[in-house]
Amino acid sequence: MPEPTHTLEGWHILHDFRRLDFPRWRKASPLERQAAWEELLGLLALWRRVEEEGRGSFGVYQVITQKADLLFLNLRETLDELLELESALNKSLFAEYLLPAYGFYSVVELGSQEKPLDPESPYVKPRLTPRVPKGGYVCFYPMNKRREGGDNWYMLPAKERAHLMRAHGETGRKYQGKVLQVISGAQGLDDWEWGVDLFSEDPIQFKKIVYEMRFDEVSARFGEFGPFYVGRYLDEKALARLLDVG
Amino acid sequence: MPEPTHTLEGWHILHDFRRLDFPRWRKASPLERQAAWEELLGLLALWRRVEEEGRGSFGVYQVITQKADLLFLNLRETLDELLELESALNKSLFAEYLLPAYGFYSVVELGSQEKPLDPESPYVKPRLTPRVPKGGYVCFYPMNKRREGGDNWYMLPAKERAHLMRAHGETGRKYQGKVLQVISGAQGLDDWEWGVDLFSEDPIQFKKIVYEMRFDEVSARFGEFGPFYVGRYLDEKALARLLDVG
Amino acid sequence: MPEPTHTLEGWHILHDFRRLDFPRWRKASPLERQAAWEELLGLLALWRRVEEEGRGSFGVYQVITQKADLLFLNLRETLDELLELESALNKSLFAEYLLPAYGFYSVVELGSQEKPLDPESPYVKPRLTPRVPKGGYVCFYPMNKRREGGDNWYMLPAKERAHLMRAHGETGRKYQGKVLQVISGAQGLDDWEWGVDLFSEDPIQFKKIVYEMRFDEVSARFGEFGPFYVGRYLDEKALARLLDVG
Amino acid sequence: MPEPTHTLEGWHILHDFRRLDFPRWRKASPLERQAAWEELLGLLALWRRVEEEGRGSFGVYQVITQKADLLFLNLRETLDELLELESALNKSLFAEYLLPAYGFYSVVELGSQEKPLDPESPYVKPRLTPRVPKGGYVCFYPMNKRREGGDNWYMLPAKERAHLMRAHGETGRKYQGKVLQVISGAQGLDDWEWGVDLFSEDPIQFKKIVYEMRFDEVSARFGEFGPFYVGRYLDEKALARLLDVG
Amino acid sequence: MPEPTHTLEGWHILHDFRRLDFPRWRKASPLERQAAWEELLGLLALWRRVEEEGRGSFGVYQVITQKADLLFLNLRETLDELLELESALNKSLFAEYLLPAYGFYSVVELGSQEKPLDPESPYVKPRLTPRVPKGGYVCFYPMNKRREGGDNWYMLPAKERAHLMRAHGETGRKYQGKVLQVISGAQGLDDWEWGVDLFSEDPIQFKKIVYEMRFDEVSARFGEFGPFYVGRYLDEKALARLLDVG
Repeated sequence: MPEPTHTLEGWHILHDFRRLDFPRWRKASPLERQAAWEELLGLLALWRRVEEEGRGSFGVYQVITQKADLLFLNLRETLDELLELESALNKSLFAEYLLPAYGFYSVVELGSQEKPLDPESPYVKPRLTPRVPKGGYVCFYPMNKRREGGDNWYMLPAKERAHLMRAHGETGRKYQGKVLQVISGAQGLDDWEWGVDLFSEDPIQFKKIVYEMRFDEVSARFGEFGPFYVGRYLDEKALARLLDVG
Repeated sequence: MPEPTHTLEGWHILHDFRRLDFPRWRKASPLERQAAWEELLGLLALWRRVEEEGRGSFGVYQVITQKADLLFLNLRETLDELLELESALNKSLFAEYLLPAYGFYSVVELGSQEKPLDPESPYVKPRLTPRVPKGGYVCFYPMNKRREGGDNWYMLPAKERAHLMRAHGETGRKYQGKVLQVISGAQGLDDWEWGVDLFSEDPIQFKKIVYEMRFDEVSARFGEFGPFYVGRYLDEKALARLLDVG
Repeated sequence: MPEPTHTLEGWHILHDFRRLDFPRWRKASPLERQAAWEELLGLLALWRRVEEEGRGSFGVYQVITQKADLLFLNLRETLDELLELESALNKSLFAEYLLPAYGFYSVVELGSQEKPLDPESPYVKPRLTPRVPKGGYVCFYPMNKRREGGDNWYMLPAKERAHLMRAHGETGRKYQGKVLQVISGAQGLDDWEWGVDLFSEDPIQFKKIVYEMRFDEVSARFGEFGPFYVGRYLDEKALARLLDVG
Repeated sequence: MPEPTHTLEGWHILHDFRRLDFPRWRKASPLERQAAWEELLGLLALWRRVEEEGRGSFGVYQVITQKADLLFLNLRETLDELLELESALNKSLFAEYLLPAYGFYSVVELGSQEKPLDPESPYVKPRLTPRVPKGGYVCFYPMNKRREGGDNWYMLPAKERAHLMRAHGETGRKYQGKVLQVISGAQGLDDWEWGVDLFSEDPIQFKKIVYEMRFDEVSARFGEFGPFYVGRYLDEKALARLLDVG
Repeated sequence: MPEPTHTLEGWHILHDFRRLDFPRWRKASPLERQAAWEELLGLLALWRRVEEEGRGSFGVYQVITQKADLLFLNLRETLDELLELESALNKSLFAEYLLPAYGFYSVVELGSQEKPLDPESPYVKPRLTPRVPKGGYVCFYPMNKRREGGDNWYMLPAKERAHLMRAHGETGRKYQGKVLQVISGAQGLDDWEWGVDLFSEDPIQFKKIVYEMRFDEVSARFGEFGPFYVGRYLDEKALARLLDVG
């Protein structure tokens, strides 16, 4: 029977994609908008403090196409904290102007096809608790490993899986310095088996890395890909500008 | 012709997932919210009494991501009781603030690939009438057994099915004390063939058990998985806190 | 070239599943509810008269899970009558409180893999014009016969199809007296090739028969199943109780 | 490389399926309904004139099940005319009471697997510019030719395709006088490769022809079928009766 | 391991499909419509200036069927500019009358199966920065290359891919002067791997080219096609006429 991979879990992640009801926002009174904005700023301040205390990380993004307008990305030590911040956002005045789009719950993971990893090693620990870059762009997509006929990932011997993942890792390493990858596991947590976040200063790099990787046998034969979401990081000033309907 | 498995049926289950219309809830008057809350408490009190009398069980959960906000999980002796409580919730004042999300109807089942089970045995009976843990987390997902080309579960000899399920059971047993599993059958009752409920004090265990089990041949070759829902148990106090928009 | 099966057609069937907008119903004034209820009673009276005159049959059901709340099931001699009653329901005051859910149009059929049937025979005629039981439960699902690679129903010789259907029929006969089956054809009429209605005094029988039949080669290899809807028969008194928000 | 079929194009077709918001229609004032009805009559008069001048054809149908209530079927010489009439309907007062359902854009086509057709021949011309029967029933469905593994239509030699289509045509010819078929191509125009319209005085014929044709190898192995819509022709009087909420 | 193709990226493209809420538009006051129209004209003027300065291109189209009513097609040098114009449209008064339909984000690409292209060559540069024709019709569809069993594009040797694409290119060249093709890559950017825009003076050409190309082995075996959108170019006058509800 094929052995599962050795895996370490890190922070819990919530991707919270929303559409913004622009007409409703524009028709709210300046006072209503001001109150909603201040409440939103309060949430962002809370999230920033958590990040400063090393207990999580976050980012807000403007997402392209009608799939979503905003991504609220949060990493925390526990599911409870994610539930807490999700309902805090839902209860805020700003939620009045949000429409549902898509959400994904996963946990940062580091897998080794060969031997167990040491969670306290300086190579491992920071990768289990990644900090969201404060600028640039994000590309998020969920994915599965295929289990069909001759292309069944979970029926492969561990050794072959390790070999395929190593080759895939080499493609990834070519993009070091250009694309930061965060892999999170969602088996038992959401509808896809993994979530992938790519962060870059240049969205063309998302196209290049995903295209090149698709020729890796592990993607070509075993990768099943969900929807792709691309967004631009919004600091407070950029968020204010997006919401300015003055 | 392949023989079906020997199966015993226990309690009927309704998974009732709802989204909460937070903006509408927040904009209701304190009096309206109070009236809705008290009616909801009344329903919970009814459900608790049923549980105390050994005629069923229940749990309320806060669900992560936009798929749903609340899960009302109920087990009863008959479908009629589930229909009754579903319409009682729908007619309540609180339903005004709920939006549809997902539902699943199934019946607790205990299968044996080998010989018939005795429904009155002390091993069998409690497993047909399981009590929802009063704390921790739930993971629910529906699933099918695949019927495709060379991977057709229902065309396998009973002996091979028994062998595969036994190996699967061994993986499950590794998680004894960490994860409680409740399997329910939904053939002829809902769109998937089975429902699976996992209960644990630690949501990471959902990820670990589902990941490890996916390497069991029965999952790798024959498992088709629907959406996954993860939630945290809400006692009355926690539910009140979630609904507090004070 | 494979020969199609000999088939006789009987009554036309409309499955009309609706969700009930409970909050809207509850907030209507007692007078508005009374008027809608009386109009609904009027429709039911019409349908009952048609049944008494032997020109059709009908049943109203409370459906479990959020997929639907009500099923209006009607059988008639012609499509025109179904169109008529569908629009009469839509134009009624009660329609104000209904939301769309699912519908299916099909025609009762009796197939013989071997030789043509006599439509006037006492075995055949009543089965082409079935009467909906006035109590118990219904299970409805649409289905296709698979046409994929090695599992292509429509490429099998008539003899092999006949053999597979006969074995399937034997499984069905085990449930005689427990489950009444009505098969209707929907090729050229709706999105699935057949509709299946099971009627029983015990919903567990739906689970048992569908589970056991799935091991018949014809289901295991060739059955593709759509959504399953399960409901409890509502006589006028039970319907009144469901609608009572007093 | 397989040769494509010789194809001639005729009139452009728009299938415009809509749901009717019955409650809203019923609650409109008699004056509002009268104004909307008269505007709709105006559109129908325009369409009738186009048909009388031989520049197109049209039909309005009442559709069974909740998929749609009305089908506005129009054939014209150009796409521009279809765009024009679609927006005229959308801008009309009657559009206030319509909800979106489904639409399909295609072009009548006549294909020959063997040799080019003469567009001016008396056999070909009328079939490229078909007139919608002024009565009876319609069955519409879109379809693809399969391209999967061993069942790839587009990889077959032209000769084999011709052979398969000829056998299929023979099945169709059995229904001459009972079912009128109009085939339209939608490659590059809509989400399915073809649209099929069947017209008959008896909806049971839709079931019979589609069932029988499914045993033709070309359907059994290569046909992929979309949703099926069945409706009854509405002349002005029947349409008025459908809209009468007196 | 198969080598990826050499690829150059050009302008970023946003396809922004919207439905128009005609009843709402018709019921707005002439003043409200006038204000919305003038704001829309302002956006179009901005887009036109960008095009005149060679920093992008744009087109507005009336789309057939209920899938969408309008397509706002924009090409720009950066993602930031697309995000900017998408939110400007969303914040405009005209957005009040728009409903979501579909969106697609991609980047113009030019691929060579053989050797790297020179981005400054007179053959390459204009094709990376294409100008939307100011008239005629558009056909847009997204697509994937298949990765299934024996038909896995990404497992083919580069040489075979080059051979297949060359044959495909020859089919395309037959339509030179009749159909302008713009290919854009969306891997890592949207849910499909590529977007295809066809521009022509005659919509029948969309049908002919897509049909003929489907017989190319690269399409027959490896093409997976998403939804097709067809629209007619609207200059300011035609747009005004579409919006005229006088």
